Amino acid sequence: MIIVLKPGSDQKDIDYISEKLEKMGLKVHLSKGEERTIIGAIGDERILREPSLAAYPAVEKVLPILKPFKLASREFKQENTVISVGDVTIGGDEIAVMAGPCSVENMDGLLSVARAVAESGGAFLRGGAFKPRSSPYAFQGLGKEGLEYLAAAREETGLLVITELMDPRDLDLVCKYADIIQIGARNMSNFSLLKEVGKINKPVLLKRGLSATIKELLMSAEYILDEGNKDVILCERGVRTFETYTRNTLDLSAIPVVKSMSHLPIIVDPSHAVGRADLVPSMALAAVAAGADGLLIEVHHNPEEAFCDGPQSLRINEFTGI
Amino acid sequence: MIIVLKPGSDQKDIDYISEKLEKMGLKVHLSKGEERTIIGAIGDERILREPSLAAYPAVEKVLPILKPFKLASREFKQENTVISVGDVTIGGDEIAVMAGPCSVENMDGLLSVARAVAESGGAFLRGGAFKPRSSPYAFQGLGKEGLEYLAAAREETGLLVITELMDPRDLDLVCKYADIIQIGARNMSNFSLLKEVGKINKPVLLKRGLSATIKELLMSAEYILDEGNKDVILCERGVRTFETYTRNTLDLSAIPVVKSMSHLPIIVDPSHAVGRADLVPSMALAAVAAGADGLLIEVHHNPEEAFCDGPQSLRINEFTGI
Amino acid sequence: MIIVLKPGSDQKDIDYISEKLEKMGLKVHLSKGEERTIIGAIGDERILREPSLAAYPAVEKVLPILKPFKLASREFKQENTVISVGDVTIGGDEIAVMAGPCSVENMDGLLSVARAVAESGGAFLRGGAFKPRSSPYAFQGLGKEGLEYLAAAREETGLLVITELMDPRDLDLVCKYADIIQIGARNMSNFSLLKEVGKINKPVLLKRGLSATIKELLMSAEYILDEGNKDVILCERGVRTFETYTRNTLDLSAIPVVKSMSHLPIIVDPSHAVGRADLVPSMALAAVAAGADGLLIEVHHNPEEAFCDGPQSLRINEFTGI
Amino acid sequence: MIIVLKPGSDQKDIDYISEKLEKMGLKVHLSKGEERTIIGAIGDERILREPSLAAYPAVEKVLPILKPFKLASREFKQENTVISVGDVTIGGDEIAVMAGPCSVENMDGLLSVARAVAESGGAFLRGGAFKPRSSPYAFQGLGKEGLEYLAAAREETGLLVITELMDPRDLDLVCKYADIIQIGARNMSNFSLLKEVGKINKPVLLKRGLSATIKELLMSAEYILDEGNKDVILCERGVRTFETYTRNTLDLSAIPVVKSMSHLPIIVDPSHAVGRADLVPSMALAAVAAGADGLLIEVHHNPEEAFCDGPQSLRINEFTGI
Repeated sequence: MIIVLKPGSDQKDIDYISEKLEKMGLKVHLSKGEERTIIGAIGDERILREPSLAAYPAVEKVLPILKPFKLASREFKQENTVISVGDVTIGGDEIAVMAGPCSVENMDGLLSVARAVAESGGAFLRGGAFKPRSSPYAFQGLGKEGLEYLAAAREETGLLVITELMDPRDLDLVCKYADIIQIGARNMSNFSLLKEVGKINKPVLLKRGLSATIKELLMSAEYILDEGNKDVILCERGVRTFETYTRNTLDLSAIPVVKSMSHLPIIVDPSHAVGRADLVPSMALAAVAAGADGLLIEVHHNPEEAFCDGPQSLRINEFTGI
Repeated sequence: MIIVLKPGSDQKDIDYISEKLEKMGLKVHLSKGEERTIIGAIGDERILREPSLAAYPAVEKVLPILKPFKLASREFKQENTVISVGDVTIGGDEIAVMAGPCSVENMDGLLSVARAVAESGGAFLRGGAFKPRSSPYAFQGLGKEGLEYLAAAREETGLLVITELMDPRDLDLVCKYADIIQIGARNMSNFSLLKEVGKINKPVLLKRGLSATIKELLMSAEYILDEGNKDVILCERGVRTFETYTRNTLDLSAIPVVKSMSHLPIIVDPSHAVGRADLVPSMALAAVAAGADGLLIEVHHNPEEAFCDGPQSLRINEFTGI
Repeated sequence: MIIVLKPGSDQKDIDYISEKLEKMGLKVHLSKGEERTIIGAIGDERILREPSLAAYPAVEKVLPILKPFKLASREFKQENTVISVGDVTIGGDEIAVMAGPCSVENMDGLLSVARAVAESGGAFLRGGAFKPRSSPYAFQGLGKEGLEYLAAAREETGLLVITELMDPRDLDLVCKYADIIQIGARNMSNFSLLKEVGKINKPVLLKRGLSATIKELLMSAEYILDEGNKDVILCERGVRTFETYTRNTLDLSAIPVVKSMSHLPIIVDPSHAVGRADLVPSMALAAVAAGADGLLIEVHHNPEEAFCDGPQSLRINEFTGI
Repeated sequence: MIIVLKPGSDQKDIDYISEKLEKMGLKVHLSKGEERTIIGAIGDERILREPSLAAYPAVEKVLPILKPFKLASREFKQENTVISVGDVTIGGDEIAVMAGPCSVENMDGLLSVARAVAESGGAFLRGGAFKPRSSPYAFQGLGKEGLEYLAAAREETGLLVITELMDPRDLDLVCKYADIIQIGARNMSNFSLLKEVGKINKPVLLKRGLSATIKELLMSAEYILDEGNKDVILCERGVRTFETYTRNTLDLSAIPVVKSMSHLPIIVDPSHAVGRADLVPSMALAAVAAGADGLLIEVHHNPEEAFCDGPQSLRINEFTGI
């Protein structure tokens, strides 16, 4: 950690801050420049409990040196994390394809999509039983009934099931049916929920928040890892920008960035990112070219009748044709 | 709702979509232009359960006409909502001043701040007992102990208590101690939590999410209102932009925008918005000039020792001097 | 164009606006809903000289129906524009590779890069002689001398030269040396400059502005097309977001979006987008997978000595190894 | 400047970088931490001509310590810059009110606005003769004729004239008529233009770019100051964000930030920021409360007939009523 002092700071300021740092167990290193004095604090700055040094009047700014996450970092674990679910692995040599409707609506529709996903070689069926919707008047999901449909589709097709958890009180219910638990973008900073899924022994798919930096995504993963669950899959799904033509702006550079900083696998959801079915195929290809470990794609048997996200859902034949 | 068809759409497309709209109970109005045909759908488009019309191949875009929220709208309720808490009102003629530390850390510090807030005429003591922190290694709040300190400070100073709820499982506990329940920016789209606080009979302070539009903020308020709780206070606390000098970018235009679209009161948190104590006083003044119904300000008895957000906390004398 | 009236508007308002629209040569179409009256105005809304109808007190909002650009649109010209420069085409089946240093610094360095580009099959040498730099103290480019070095490198390697024009007063000079004229991101909305390059008979590479929407990029292309120059190549080079790990956020979805709306070719500059050499190769691959017509890549013979943008420049061997 | 080395860097790396820094005239200061070695480089880092040290493979990141601008900084000049134009000062105790139409359209309309501005105590008449418009089909301004109208209005009302310069080739023409030269947001990074207005002896109003950081705004001011023109007025006019209800997001915190870092005056343009006339008055008040040195406000004699920006223009009586 580097502490830059304001011009005009005196020896008293330097001594005060140096003492504070030393009390925290850090080694102090001083260097006086023409315009500024800077204090280097050597040691594990992550263990510091918010020293709030920047609040001291003589301090101009505090520059962290180390990454704020540890367990998620490539330095902590050099080799890639490969997660096994059923017979499938995520983060290894395969591209994990997870496809299905935004929300589970009825058994027949779900089954027709599931069969198509299985026939095209996908390994996972996605589908929401609990749906986070910006309007209270929009379809909120079938709940337990939706989970049962997913399990029935798994039974028939052999696909593994990935579905979203929104509320810590539903943890046991969702875990009973899902093979992978999804934490949605809107809950990436729902730390209570992250701690809960950190305690289970199922993989967690953690979606990047709408305006979360890559570091914040890794910090949220750190919450899960820190509770003991090592099977975290990250998911880039577009971030919010000023561009309005697409629903969000897909940040594919997050893939090589995550790969350089972390050992965790990362997949891409092009459907939510672009919000328009016609753009999904090229973005899916680009994601794989950029090094993604998998894809999460919305497919619906009849998008214009979908209860949610119809415009961004591929038709079954569009999906199998990619 | 206006449905714009792609060039080249034929009568079959028009008939198909018109029939769908009529089945939904909407009246259809057709107009054919030089390059595009557009279909007007008249009726309460909010009651539609996601028709997903934009997924139909002949549709170029769907333009909503009505606002997506109803109970929160100025059209639904013309006069301002004025919320009474104890002897104080929010949304009326007074400016509600809510001040205190980011997190409750110990009794003595809290009391010294609370006394200063009361003496300067503030009516509310803010302080976090449950803290949403981006790092699992950062101070997470004192929990129940912190709530007890807040209650003790209320006892002594007469201030009303506002504190954050993060987890639906803590609802009863937090309600037992708080006069106003705060929903933090990171939980603005935690719809499970919103539904829960919609069922209680205490006012809810709902903070705007880091990248939430004003409409989305009002939609989240609609979740609470729709469950029956009419006492929602909105809070602008800065949005995330490309600017890095300030922690967030305070969007004061949200105040007149909310006032024009909604009857709900809106207050401003300049501390989280700017992230630097020296900028807080001028932004607090600007917020009041823009028409804010109140201010939420971080004050700490010793910012450089604060467990969180020290750099943006005013010292006691800085606060009383505004 | 759809004009939505405020609730409570009366017949006088409707008549006033309808008359105005009819005077502009538009056909009027009225539809009265439960809460709102909407007026459809049929005709070429692009020819309207800013009617400013939204300023009329009874108007709630104005929704455009047609795209604001015409010559750049896929509707105006269905087949892809393929641009010939020397023996090379851009926008056809080939991927155009344009590589070279950010700024031209000296003859030897430029030549060593140019030879490598030519040997790896690249067709274009990029290099700045006039450099837009955020600091007046940073290297501003060699000017005419830099252009001469570029011409000399073309002489030796057969590569075509692409270089930036910043000032309309340098137009003749730059045109004398360049095969393609680049308009940089900071000048995408420098309309005086756009009009000038609209009058020349050389292809123009138009970079997307840091916070320009895709529509605004196409509107800037429209300025050039409208002056008579039909050879416009668009370039996605990352947009500004809240993410700080990368220099900008590369928006690869701009590729299929441009392809769907316009006939113009689009290439990608991954170097400026990510700002870090180690991320460039995977983003270059992703760009091609997404359908880009070419790549613009920074390569330097010695990045740590580069006068600008060293950190994002590939070394020669890194480039030839892609 | 702080250079952070990657873990695993060895003495050879340290020596190489240290030598480079010393050759640049900087003093080197080394500190080795548990995980990282950091090198402090003491001296005026602004004089460095882009050392591109971050391109060196052993370097993880480079953290600048000093502000990148000098002449614009509060450290270079402690007292506020107060600019005199005619009898008026900007940056002193008065609030400079600059008002008028977006574009000059005809003599009568301009005069009726000018008289109202003068009568309400405004000192400056704003009006565009050269207009940067995103569409080539939109009104581009009256050019020289518009300048003559402005001069005639000055003659009659005594108001000083502020108008925009877009093209370096129009410099002499615009200077002949204007009292203050405006550089628009789209040209904030048009460095050729900035250098030109740095050579004149009239004040320059420099508007913040749509996605420019406050530091970048000050760097653009530095370009003008560095050429010798000391009379630079900064202008906050809203930045581009994800929020769509307002045209831009007005960043009033830029005012105290600029005041803390720079001696230059800063005014606010609420009209372009919010894009809706009804929001302008409260944002104008908020700007003054935040410490702005002046206001730039669009006023039109008949907004619904305006050639540009009608929806955000105040009517004459709305303006005089603020």
